[in-house]
Formats: sequence, C-alpha cells, structure tokens
Amino acid sequence: MTVEEASGPPTARGRRSREAIVAAAAELMEARGIAATGIGDVLRASGTGKSQLYHYFDGKSDLVLAVIDHQLERVLAAQPALAGHDVRAWAASLWELHRDGGGPFPCPLGVFSSQVDDDERWRAHQSGAFARWQERIAGLLARGQAAGNVDPTREPADLAVVVLAAVQGGLMLARLHRDLHVLDLALGAAVDLVRAG
Amino acid sequence: MTVEEASGPPTARGRRSREAIVAAAAELMEARGIAATGIGDVLRASGTGKSQLYHYFDGKSDLVLAVIDHQLERVLAAQPALAGHDVRAWAASLWELHRDGGGPFPCPLGVFSSQVDDDERWRAHQSGAFARWQERIAGLLARGQAAGNVDPTREPADLAVVVLAAVQGGLMLARLHRDLHVLDLALGAAVDLVRAG
Repeated sequence: MTVEEASGPPTARGRRSREAIVAAAAELMEARGIAATGIGDVLRASGTGKSQLYHYFDGKSDLVLAVIDHQLERVLAAQPALAGHDVRAWAASLWELHRDGGGPFPCPLGVFSSQVDDDERWRAHQSGAFARWQERIAGLLARGQAAGNVDPTREPADLAVVVLAAVQGGLMLARLHRDLHVLDLALGAAVDLVRAG
Repeated sequence: MTVEEASGPPTARGRRSREAIVAAAAELMEARGIAATGIGDVLRASGTGKSQLYHYFDGKSDLVLAVIDHQLERVLAAQPALAGHDVRAWAASLWELHRDGGGPFPCPLGVFSSQVDDDERWRAHQSGAFARWQERIAGLLARGQAAGNVDPTREPADLAVVVLAAVQGGLMLARLHRDLHVLDLALGAAVDLVRAG
C-alpha cells in the first residue's frame, strides 16, 4: 500500500498538487536525466514543500514510476490516430510532431530506457509502459487488418513490436543526426513492414 | 591541434598507455553514464597518473570523443559479416552476440546517443560514428544487390538507415523487456525490409 492509498481518496486539489510535482519532475528528468535530478530540484521547480511531496511519494524511486506514467500519457495523448485504423495516417501524425520547432525530438519516454537498466523496479515499470504503447499500436494494426490495409497473416502484437522498434530507432538516429529525413525513412519503413499485399 | 598531435608520433608503449585509459573510460561510461564518470574514476580504474592522461587528452570532453571511437571499433569488430554480402547472415550474427551470458545487451555505442544531446562536439562525433556504421551496412547492402538478394530499386544508403534504426530500436526494446524474442522480431523485420522480390 502506498502512502497515497493509505490516506484515502485524493481530493481534486490533492490531485492537482500531485500532478504539479510529477510534471516538474518529468521536465527535469527528461532534460537532465534521472540520476542528475534530486528531490530538492523537484521541490524548487514545483514550488511544493517537502512534507507535501512525501505525502504522495515515498521518495525519488517512487517519483520515477509516476514520471514514467506521466510520459506515457503525454506520448499517447499526442497520438490520437492510434485510435483509428490507418497506420499511414498515424505515421504521418508522428512525423508532424517532429517537423517544427527544433525537431526531430527525442522520445519523451524512450530517453529513460537506458537510465532504468540498473533498477529492477524502474525497468519493469518502463517495460510495462512500452508494453501499453505496443498494445495500442497492436489495436491500430488489428483494425487495419479488418480494414484490409495491414498484412492479415501476421500477429498484430508481433508487428507492433517491430513498428515501435522502427519508431524508437528512427527517432534516436534522427535526433542524433539532426535530420528529419532519417525519421521520414524510418516511419516509411514501419508502414512498409505492416502493409498488406 | 590536439595535445597528442603536438607531441609527435606516439610510441608503441604510448599507444598502449593511451588505449588503456580509453578502455577504462569506456567501461565506466558505458556502465554508469558519461555524466557520472569523472577523470578521477578513470585514473583509478586505469592505474595511470594525471600527467599521463593529460598528455593524451585535454580533459574529459576530449576523452569522450576517444571513447565513442573506441565503442564504434568494438561494435564493428564484433560484426565481421558486415564485410560480406549476406544481410541475413549478418543479422543472424548480431542475434548470436546477444543470445548468451545475460543478453540481450544494450548497444555499446547506442547507449551514448541520449547522453551527448546537449554537447554539440560530442553529438557531432557520435553522429559521425553512426554514419560510419551506416556506411558499412550500406556496403553490405550494395554487395547484396549485386548478389541479387537485396531490393535493387532502393538506395543502399537509405536502406542502411532503416536497417540500423530497426537494430537500435530492437536492441532498446529487447533489453528493456529482457526478451530476446523482441530482438528476433526486429532483426527479422530489418531483413524483410531490404530483401529482393
């Protein structure tokens, strides 16, 4: 049972306060890395007090799990086309996200993968977050199969893994080379991998 | 001109000493991250003196560039099949590297990509290292085209980007999920992406 569960259902104000802490922590950890972000930094950035933070979280380790959930929600919220049946439209919408204002960007969730490797609790949580993203892609692909634009002979769950690998590797290389064309190639490949016929 | 260039051609002993420093730094930075590795850690791990290290490197920033080169050489040396013409054999050899002894492993070069994002000199060097890897893959694919087992209608350089993206994303997800099957799927997809017919 977490501290939060012990204290009963949170109020709306409590939820906002908790969310402000998580959002500040997420921004810092995304920019500087998990290891370089201390509880003190999060308190200063969120303008919350120590006792308030410890009301919601056992400590930094607990906060990292909430940050991973927060990043997953951001990532999924930015991809409404995941609820559709058109893989090509989804890939195009991803590309749009990275086209302007300093993109291609690192993946807000993917950047943590190498940083959670040594902490089994963090790693399992990050793995679970990616599994949820993969499930959403598998749903898109299954609807694509029903619509006739995705290869019907492959398991949507298997295809979802290779599509997400192409997206993650493509974002990593595009960001590294500061070259949007790389993302274009990787997303095109992801679409090619799943298409019917 | 670097310190090393200024001091004339290195002796065999000098090369070994420099290499020992770089190997120790690479091991530490791969395990802990670049930010968490100080010059003092490298001196202790390599058993070299401060003046010796500063004979070869201006400082940590310089050492990071040498570590990136070192990791690229390790990565390429582990893939002799890159010199061939058989993409499938190359993919199978990659899979073998990750099958035993605690694999799937993180990519020794790829793990640095998110860590060099804020330092333009490091990022450009890491980008150059990945460009060299891509060139080697493009060579493999061009020979595969000549041998008739790679799609002749695509540019080898473009295909190399999507293949390396699949490998990097596949390694990231396989390591995260601690699941070799994920690497299997990603490498299979990379082979599918380039094959003729």
